[in-house]
Amino acid sequence: MSTTVSPLAPKSFADLPPIEGVRLATAAAGIKYQNRTDVLLALLDPGTVAAGVFTKSKCPSAPVEWCRAHLKGAKPRALVVNSGNANAFTGKTGRQACKFTAEIASRAIGCKPADVFLASTGVIGEPLNAKAFDGVMEGLVVAAKPEPWLDAAKAIMTTDTFPKVATASAKLGKATVTINGFAKGAGMIAPDMATMLSFVFTDAPIGARALQALLSEGVGSTFNAVTIDGDTSTSDTLMAFATGTAAGRGAPRIAHAADPRLKAFRAALRAVLAHLAEQVARDGEGARKLVEIKVEGARTDASARRIAMSIANSPLVKTAIAGEDANWGRVVMAVGKAGEPADRDKLSIWFNGIRVAHKGARDPAYDEGVVSETMKSQTIALKVALGLGKGSDRVLTCDLTKEYVAINGDYRS
Amino acid sequence: MSTTVSPLAPKSFADLPPIEGVRLATAAAGIKYQNRTDVLLALLDPGTVAAGVFTKSKCPSAPVEWCRAHLKGAKPRALVVNSGNANAFTGKTGRQACKFTAEIASRAIGCKPADVFLASTGVIGEPLNAKAFDGVMEGLVVAAKPEPWLDAAKAIMTTDTFPKVATASAKLGKATVTINGFAKGAGMIAPDMATMLSFVFTDAPIGARALQALLSEGVGSTFNAVTIDGDTSTSDTLMAFATGTAAGRGAPRIAHAADPRLKAFRAALRAVLAHLAEQVARDGEGARKLVEIKVEGARTDASARRIAMSIANSPLVKTAIAGEDANWGRVVMAVGKAGEPADRDKLSIWFNGIRVAHKGARDPAYDEGVVSETMKSQTIALKVALGLGKGSDRVLTCDLTKEYVAINGDYRS
Repeated sequence: MSTTVSPLAPKSFADLPPIEGVRLATAAAGIKYQNRTDVLLALLDPGTVAAGVFTKSKCPSAPVEWCRAHLKGAKPRALVVNSGNANAFTGKTGRQACKFTAEIASRAIGCKPADVFLASTGVIGEPLNAKAFDGVMEGLVVAAKPEPWLDAAKAIMTTDTFPKVATASAKLGKATVTINGFAKGAGMIAPDMATMLSFVFTDAPIGARALQALLSEGVGSTFNAVTIDGDTSTSDTLMAFATGTAAGRGAPRIAHAADPRLKAFRAALRAVLAHLAEQVARDGEGARKLVEIKVEGARTDASARRIAMSIANSPLVKTAIAGEDANWGRVVMAVGKAGEPADRDKLSIWFNGIRVAHKGARDPAYDEGVVSETMKSQTIALKVALGLGKGSDRVLTCDLTKEYVAINGDYRS
Repeated sequence: MSTTVSPLAPKSFADLPPIEGVRLATAAAGIKYQNRTDVLLALLDPGTVAAGVFTKSKCPSAPVEWCRAHLKGAKPRALVVNSGNANAFTGKTGRQACKFTAEIASRAIGCKPADVFLASTGVIGEPLNAKAFDGVMEGLVVAAKPEPWLDAAKAIMTTDTFPKVATASAKLGKATVTINGFAKGAGMIAPDMATMLSFVFTDAPIGARALQALLSEGVGSTFNAVTIDGDTSTSDTLMAFATGTAAGRGAPRIAHAADPRLKAFRAALRAVLAHLAEQVARDGEGARKLVEIKVEGARTDASARRIAMSIANSPLVKTAIAGEDANWGRVVMAVGKAGEPADRDKLSIWFNGIRVAHKGARDPAYDEGVVSETMKSQTIALKVALGLGKGSDRVLTCDLTKEYVAINGDYRS
């Protein structure tokens, strides 16, 4: 956990209201850190359903495998998350640590181990001492309350410089339902200390399959549209839990994601995910600038995404932005290397709304002094128009600074 | 051009012998730099044939398009290379600059413009003032001599901290033929100042199609197995020229790449390309460590290449190595994100010959103190065994340092 808060941090944190059926507690189990909380318990009332989206890594962590194995037909009663150790690449002992953690939680709660979902973030390859949870689990169950959302977000931080929370409400039938979420991660990204974990809770009575569909569709333009360094964690986890308690206040039970009554909920869920994802980008390791990359005129949306990611992950583009240099030549390079359809002589590029390149050459009207002045801003808008079709996309990233190298080069040693 | 030579630079430069039919001259045309040469002319005797491998960028530079257009059936008489301006993303004026340069060279030499090959490296997007060549071209033709190979390598440098030359000889029939090469590039890579350009010359009487086949096969395990930052230049160019003059000393004329008499030549060409490619890695921007990544036990060689490149391009792996940290957890991450077949529980990892992870977990025998001591070395050997098949590969890269960020963040501004 860094002592210096990112200059891109939000000025204030959203105030998350209670969600009926969710209670939270945190504790200091001493997994790795001193003088801070490192374990979170979220208690879920009976009737809750779950959905999840996990890392595409071929070497996933033990908790990711645990969650995947238990998601189908789940009757979730608890979520246990720890920071300080990712329980990844820990072999058989990692699987045992998951089983042990779920067992002590299930005993304390009075449910089955399979009803307990798990996530871990921190160092890879070191055995997780799950016995440390044994001393705190019963106390967590007793202490759990509806209010401490910000504490929950803080307990799961690693290299994060600020806790990430978001909330929204929406009409579902005649009832108002709430969606709360929190996240950690200083990248998509890093296996050591910057795995992306995010958890979303709602009282909306939405069935498990519908919730999964909503979560899967919501992630494309939010968490999957954020990149810090192109590295993918072994542990990336996004889970959603719906307690359904709003049914008691008249919210209709929803079984299908295509149900038209979900319109407002769908938008609110997307807003929560987008807000959390943006905060992850704002806390990119060493980040000094938030960079929005828009690609238009690609052959397809998927092609636009790949071009946007090629730009967003280019070390040369990112270092230029760190240097406050509107170096559009490097953007041309990144478009060119994406491997997607592109025609140099139709390409136009804007930095902060100013067109710097047009139809395959420097824009004759562009004044480098004016553009350079705008590059001092904390947020940089980069737009590329390909002139080939109607495909478009938007991704968020941050600049690549010497601090990124310092954070990641100095961390373990 | 940096004033500080890479600590990974070779201790001395190879002494390149003359190649009959090749004469070289350099000049200061004032394209961008002061007080240094920035244009190279290589004169080629009639009968020379050419082969080339170019960037895969969808936005290639004007000289790359020029060379591609003229390669088939070429009767090359000259190569003109400038540093300081890449003539990339320069639209119609870029094409005109190529034509103009080829025309003035062809007039001075007495050949056709199509017989002149071109390459440019430097800033993208700025018009290249080809008129600057007009004042120096006739002098270059007059001054061209068989000896100044090192001067040629120096004239094409940009952010390079040392010139890159290599030579080898081989028996072809009963004659001994020579292969000389030089290269520039502080990466695969950067569009501004670190395009990879390489030129190889031989007196061997090898036909154009055979030479192209030899060059294309040689590049896979050499230049294509080097990465600095995963960025691909708009201008990457590797060309080979065979004067055929060794035929006068009894070397047999070779028409097909499969000719068994090419065995020694093929190995010598590969050695020259490998030596030049390694020097490019040793001059990676900000590099302090040369990193060799070997992948074994992959399903296929192609799969091993993608996994090796995923490791080599991971900012987290590269910053850890800069920090002298044998952070094998990040190697697991990079294997996992490659998208290739991998089984966590069969994975083993070595740093500098010491096994740190075995069968999906930390190697119990590994002593972090011993491994950390070896990480202080200038060359780092990283090996990954997947345990799935017989596919293997080897790539070279360098670490990612604060100096990389400084070089690329401060460059234009």
